[in-house]
Amino acid sequence: MSKTKQNPSPGRLGVWLFGAYGGLATTLVVGTRAIARGLAEPRGLATELPIAVGIPWQGLADIVFGGHEIRTGDYVSAAAEIHAKTGTLAPSLVHALRKDLAAASKNVVAGVMPNAGRTIESLADRKPKAATSLRAQVEQIQRDIRAWQRQHRLDRVVCVNLTSTEPQLKMTAAHRSLAAFEKALDKNDVRAVRPSAIYAYVAATLGLPFVHFTPSDSALVPAIQEAFAKSNTPWMGRDGKTGETLVKSALAPMFKYRNLRVLSWQGYNILGDRDGRVLANAANKKTKVATKDALLPSILGYPLHTHVGIDYVPSLHDLKTAWDFVHFEGFLGFKMSLQFIWQGCDAILAAPLVLDLVRFADLAKRRGEVGSMPHLACFFKQPIGVAEHDLHHQWQMLVGYLERVRSERAR
Amino acid sequence: MSKTKQNPSPGRLGVWLFGAYGGLATTLVVGTRAIARGLAEPRGLATELPIAVGIPWQGLADIVFGGHEIRTGDYVSAAAEIHAKTGTLAPSLVHALRKDLAAASKNVVAGVMPNAGRTIESLADRKPKAATSLRAQVEQIQRDIRAWQRQHRLDRVVCVNLTSTEPQLKMTAAHRSLAAFEKALDKNDVRAVRPSAIYAYVAATLGLPFVHFTPSDSALVPAIQEAFAKSNTPWMGRDGKTGETLVKSALAPMFKYRNLRVLSWQGYNILGDRDGRVLANAANKKTKVATKDALLPSILGYPLHTHVGIDYVPSLHDLKTAWDFVHFEGFLGFKMSLQFIWQGCDAILAAPLVLDLVRFADLAKRRGEVGSMPHLACFFKQPIGVAEHDLHHQWQMLVGYLERVRSERAR
Amino acid sequence: MSKTKQNPSPGRLGVWLFGAYGGLATTLVVGTRAIARGLAEPRGLATELPIAVGIPWQGLADIVFGGHEIRTGDYVSAAAEIHAKTGTLAPSLVHALRKDLAAASKNVVAGVMPNAGRTIESLADRKPKAATSLRAQVEQIQRDIRAWQRQHRLDRVVCVNLTSTEPQLKMTAAHRSLAAFEKALDKNDVRAVRPSAIYAYVAATLGLPFVHFTPSDSALVPAIQEAFAKSNTPWMGRDGKTGETLVKSALAPMFKYRNLRVLSWQGYNILGDRDGRVLANAANKKTKVATKDALLPSILGYPLHTHVGIDYVPSLHDLKTAWDFVHFEGFLGFKMSLQFIWQGCDAILAAPLVLDLVRFADLAKRRGEVGSMPHLACFFKQPIGVAEHDLHHQWQMLVGYLERVRSERAR
Amino acid sequence: MSKTKQNPSPGRLGVWLFGAYGGLATTLVVGTRAIARGLAEPRGLATELPIAVGIPWQGLADIVFGGHEIRTGDYVSAAAEIHAKTGTLAPSLVHALRKDLAAASKNVVAGVMPNAGRTIESLADRKPKAATSLRAQVEQIQRDIRAWQRQHRLDRVVCVNLTSTEPQLKMTAAHRSLAAFEKALDKNDVRAVRPSAIYAYVAATLGLPFVHFTPSDSALVPAIQEAFAKSNTPWMGRDGKTGETLVKSALAPMFKYRNLRVLSWQGYNILGDRDGRVLANAANKKTKVATKDALLPSILGYPLHTHVGIDYVPSLHDLKTAWDFVHFEGFLGFKMSLQFIWQGCDAILAAPLVLDLVRFADLAKRRGEVGSMPHLACFFKQPIGVAEHDLHHQWQMLVGYLERVRSERAR
Repeated sequence: MSKTKQNPSPGRLGVWLFGAYGGLATTLVVGTRAIARGLAEPRGLATELPIAVGIPWQGLADIVFGGHEIRTGDYVSAAAEIHAKTGTLAPSLVHALRKDLAAASKNVVAGVMPNAGRTIESLADRKPKAATSLRAQVEQIQRDIRAWQRQHRLDRVVCVNLTSTEPQLKMTAAHRSLAAFEKALDKNDVRAVRPSAIYAYVAATLGLPFVHFTPSDSALVPAIQEAFAKSNTPWMGRDGKTGETLVKSALAPMFKYRNLRVLSWQGYNILGDRDGRVLANAANKKTKVATKDALLPSILGYPLHTHVGIDYVPSLHDLKTAWDFVHFEGFLGFKMSLQFIWQGCDAILAAPLVLDLVRFADLAKRRGEVGSMPHLACFFKQPIGVAEHDLHHQWQMLVGYLERVRSERAR
Repeated sequence: MSKTKQNPSPGRLGVWLFGAYGGLATTLVVGTRAIARGLAEPRGLATELPIAVGIPWQGLADIVFGGHEIRTGDYVSAAAEIHAKTGTLAPSLVHALRKDLAAASKNVVAGVMPNAGRTIESLADRKPKAATSLRAQVEQIQRDIRAWQRQHRLDRVVCVNLTSTEPQLKMTAAHRSLAAFEKALDKNDVRAVRPSAIYAYVAATLGLPFVHFTPSDSALVPAIQEAFAKSNTPWMGRDGKTGETLVKSALAPMFKYRNLRVLSWQGYNILGDRDGRVLANAANKKTKVATKDALLPSILGYPLHTHVGIDYVPSLHDLKTAWDFVHFEGFLGFKMSLQFIWQGCDAILAAPLVLDLVRFADLAKRRGEVGSMPHLACFFKQPIGVAEHDLHHQWQMLVGYLERVRSERAR
Repeated sequence: MSKTKQNPSPGRLGVWLFGAYGGLATTLVVGTRAIARGLAEPRGLATELPIAVGIPWQGLADIVFGGHEIRTGDYVSAAAEIHAKTGTLAPSLVHALRKDLAAASKNVVAGVMPNAGRTIESLADRKPKAATSLRAQVEQIQRDIRAWQRQHRLDRVVCVNLTSTEPQLKMTAAHRSLAAFEKALDKNDVRAVRPSAIYAYVAATLGLPFVHFTPSDSALVPAIQEAFAKSNTPWMGRDGKTGETLVKSALAPMFKYRNLRVLSWQGYNILGDRDGRVLANAANKKTKVATKDALLPSILGYPLHTHVGIDYVPSLHDLKTAWDFVHFEGFLGFKMSLQFIWQGCDAILAAPLVLDLVRFADLAKRRGEVGSMPHLACFFKQPIGVAEHDLHHQWQMLVGYLERVRSERAR
Repeated sequence: MSKTKQNPSPGRLGVWLFGAYGGLATTLVVGTRAIARGLAEPRGLATELPIAVGIPWQGLADIVFGGHEIRTGDYVSAAAEIHAKTGTLAPSLVHALRKDLAAASKNVVAGVMPNAGRTIESLADRKPKAATSLRAQVEQIQRDIRAWQRQHRLDRVVCVNLTSTEPQLKMTAAHRSLAAFEKALDKNDVRAVRPSAIYAYVAATLGLPFVHFTPSDSALVPAIQEAFAKSNTPWMGRDGKTGETLVKSALAPMFKYRNLRVLSWQGYNILGDRDGRVLANAANKKTKVATKDALLPSILGYPLHTHVGIDYVPSLHDLKTAWDFVHFEGFLGFKMSLQFIWQGCDAILAAPLVLDLVRFADLAKRRGEVGSMPHLACFFKQPIGVAEHDLHHQWQMLVGYLERVRSERAR
């Protein structure tokens, strides 16, 4: 059924998830197994499109998941909870995969969360492993990943950060160089880190490709980018582009082409679930909104009135709804409007992106690429190091990369 | 104010409008004069974007309008009528331009409309010039255009078809070759033509670039394309891409990139005005819907359930409103939706496209280009001879053309 | 859990469903059993509101379902099919009720469908019982109902018509009096009937209260109303008011109160499923649209431009979506708009209305009421014999009736 | 043209506007004169509906406007500014009324604004009249109104508060009794008042009916209600129900009738203009949101998740747009949604309400009614002293009042 069977899979790949029992991670694990077993189409995966044919992608059947989590649980019950809320992850499918999911659940261990902020801390019900210092926490995670890799005889590992949005980190001298950051770790300066910084640092020290799928700004500070460079490791972030922002970046160029002046672009997102609850907290929301707001002036080429609202509506759970109102001016200054309403399930939209990113990150590592992966810009709300937000240009960047890979292989 | 002043204008350009007093034509004439006199920004014009800098565009101040019309009137009163209905064309602006508009009104003469269909015929209140045969009609239009060109000492002329959508023409052998078509004219076979066929044929015989902005299918049949080729003349059509279809062609690629399967795309357009009245007639609507419907399968690459509705809502006049409902399937087959609501004034959206097309057609003629102009695909719902409907690819085609023109000029 | 337990249930009530395995009927049967067993709240039932306290409603636990159906099947598999399409009727709930549903399935027998129209006939896969004449069909249904009533020792029976919308019936002399109608039956004049006419006639002859929940116009012609009068039986119809029309009738009075002139009210309904497929057929749609269209002029008090569109969108199944655009004029003639988008599951919306109507019809029969039940107007798109379409007035009619019943009981 | 001519007008009525040059006041003055002169229909006026026939309403032609304003200006230029922004108040209409408007402009004098809050104070460009103390300010306003009444030989006067939303007033002992309030005035305790408190107090002392159309909470504190009682004067408030809240109060009862549980009701309002600018300030917005938020639990009868957002979008000016998302649960707990989008011009919606309220307040005064006017609840977002928010019940209250008035007159 899946095109993934066309290529001989290049060995066994481990995918380590920070935030392993969240809605997105659970959907990812269930979905990957479902596709691997031929129980679902590989819908949503760019790496299964015609443009991606001929690339030696990791086969989905040979992916092994593991990860850290601050809440207790297992994939079968997490999936049941998700189904009750959003209707995704049908019980019959989960039942068919129950053995795979039980096996995956065994690979989830207690996470650490230094300085996560109160909102996230309140979600934790799993005692973090005894870790008296940041250094000890770093080493604990390193040991967890290496032990799991050995246990499952994994040829390669990719790390993915799927944890909740953290409050913004105050940038200081400690984040400007690897040496300064490591000194802060040595001094156990907890205020200098957020959990995501620790996760990214661990990946860098182990030389594992890192996909930073959340908006948290601590993960990819210069100090950590330096650590990735030092270990010759590819990475990319941040904040998966799934819903309203995706539509925005697809539509905004149209106004540019037609020389229609956008006067105001108001966007309102409503969502429930853990994600919504975390974002209802002002400090965490600020991080998120920041990654959503730069896009329009960048595409359109002029400053304009924009607003990005995010509100918590518990009854929606993960069925995110967004209303955007675009007010624009045309010939002779006449004002007109375009509105759109997006109704999607965030985990369903994000999970295939994560799978795509894992495959791309793994490919980059095998190809010896180091540092940020700008060709993956189309997957992120704030593609670090890429000024381009136009979805269609970003797509051309991806297509161009695939063509280069293919032509290099053909030689 | 306008960038048009940067280039020395390449002489005087006549623009002959078939359908000279319609809402679009009136908005075009008022707007062109407003920009030419510095009373309005050149909003909505792609030829005024940064990508179009350095091309010797026709200056707007040196454009002279003329045309055919089946209804009596003049631009000042047509503009007042439009303002009362839609709020565009402010009375103060029209007052400031009253002399220009009176002058333009003098260039409008009675049109011909062989076999226009009953709905269009019912709109006519201007006695068509006595024309006993198709041949006589052709000659009459030729004489009208030539006389006006001489009178105004126009260096060049571009013809634009802005008439109401005609019922579909039954294609016969008469449309397959120029010889057969001319034989039909000679035999005065009225059923073989619609007014648009005559207009296009006249432009071809006079060697004048032709922009076919309406959906009518009679204008650019093979016989007439042959006529344009014979006189070394560029042409393009059909049906300006202004509203719902524009948004569609901007959004659909997003679903493709993300491997989100579109299950259904329902579009409903409501509009009033002459345009809405003509389209409320089933025969005329069929022509329109046909040009709107091919787009999605072409962009997405698979057949899908689509619907394009057009309904007449008199109270809206030209303030066209469209609701589109897009039902799509993501990861694990989960169904989600995107809706958009477009509220625009059709004439305001279309007028700058016509100006752009006139400039491009004129440029092509001066550059010695012949036949269809595929680089203008982004302006049309059904770009004749171009299979590409993806707005962003079409845009790249335009950008590429402009780069070629610029680089050729630089040599 | 349910308030239904407050009253001692007045015996056992049979509910005979014409169209017993459709989405609505299946949802009704599953939901009634779920509430009866305390597995669901009585959400959606007006008879469980505070205004309905103190009325001797039939207890849901003592309702027995039976019915006619033209397709083979059973409730467990019908429910599974529905769940797969719309996400309603959770497998865990259906599993918990599997014995109840198996029992209910035994009460479904093959139906008859004289002159149903091709679209409906194409749905049938259950051979109608051998019935050579209309009279024989009538007698067959009478026997089916009586046998089931005896078998289950039912104290009373209510009949409900839930069959698909039929093509409009051509009204003739045969429908004006009971005598003429019965003569047509005697002559086996199949063209004079539709299936719904036969169902209603049977209910009338058996003296069973009849709820006509579909738009079909054949059921309650004067001849059949006469038959109900003759057997002292209450009845009401037609076409349950569930979605877009409900909202319309709730909103339109607001425009009246404010003296805001509605210029146009455009409504577009999209839906899939058997219902959508039947309505995609022009003849059946005509019946439906007719019941939807009279409402606005009646509430607003003046003629206006309205449109009710219904289009078939298979991927939606029963998740009906409607977009309404209301264009209105306020102070100084300024035009403004209100739009609404309704997204509901039709069977979920309709099932509690059917339960309410069954209870009301049963109550009326016990109270000795005869003929149409105008106090039930708020449940119908086209309440027969009631000119009032304003939902709030209709609601007051219901409230007034309940107060009368309560005060009569108090005496 | 207007029905107002049916009744002999009961003398000359003065309408004193606090906030005389705002968008609403300007629209009110232009519109009243337009209807009086037969240049516009009395659209939007409930007092011109069939239910209001036979009541001795004040004739519109015999209304004289006057008022206070903190900004300089005149009606002709205010109207031109409004037209440029929203397209209302057509220049041709304003031109036809220019003499009436010039006359009305002469009746506008500089206002006072003790403790108005910074946002409102920043709007003032008209030096408030020298007023060294609150008492002096009160007397100044009293003199202004009396002088104008004498000058124009007005039989009666109604006062209307149309000023911008003020920050919430901290309620203290000074607001609980008239004696305490007057003591605060005597002590010149500026913190105990907002401008609206002064306006209402003045109206009360002069025995003039008072319509409090804005959300400001200072105007109708118990102390001032006592002052109105003392002078036997009718009053009503607060916050005219024009847009989103109107629709809400019309739609919410539908969910109640159908026993559909509303889970969440999210409302987002976007608007520009002075109103939007004032509300963009958090303190002023708080006052507004408070009046919008109590409605749903009151109508539905249970607490629910609600949100009312108001954001400033300069390009919209007074063309307020609102999106509401209603998430509700039906039969078997299935979740569905209703969304609406409201696009209206606030001043156009509000002006006829003000005219209606003036007529009702004047009628009440003539009839000797004292204190609050609960029958006017349907005109207000927060009808003081009325718990009923259901628009339809409020409407019945109005209809009942009119019937009582009519029947008393008939005696």
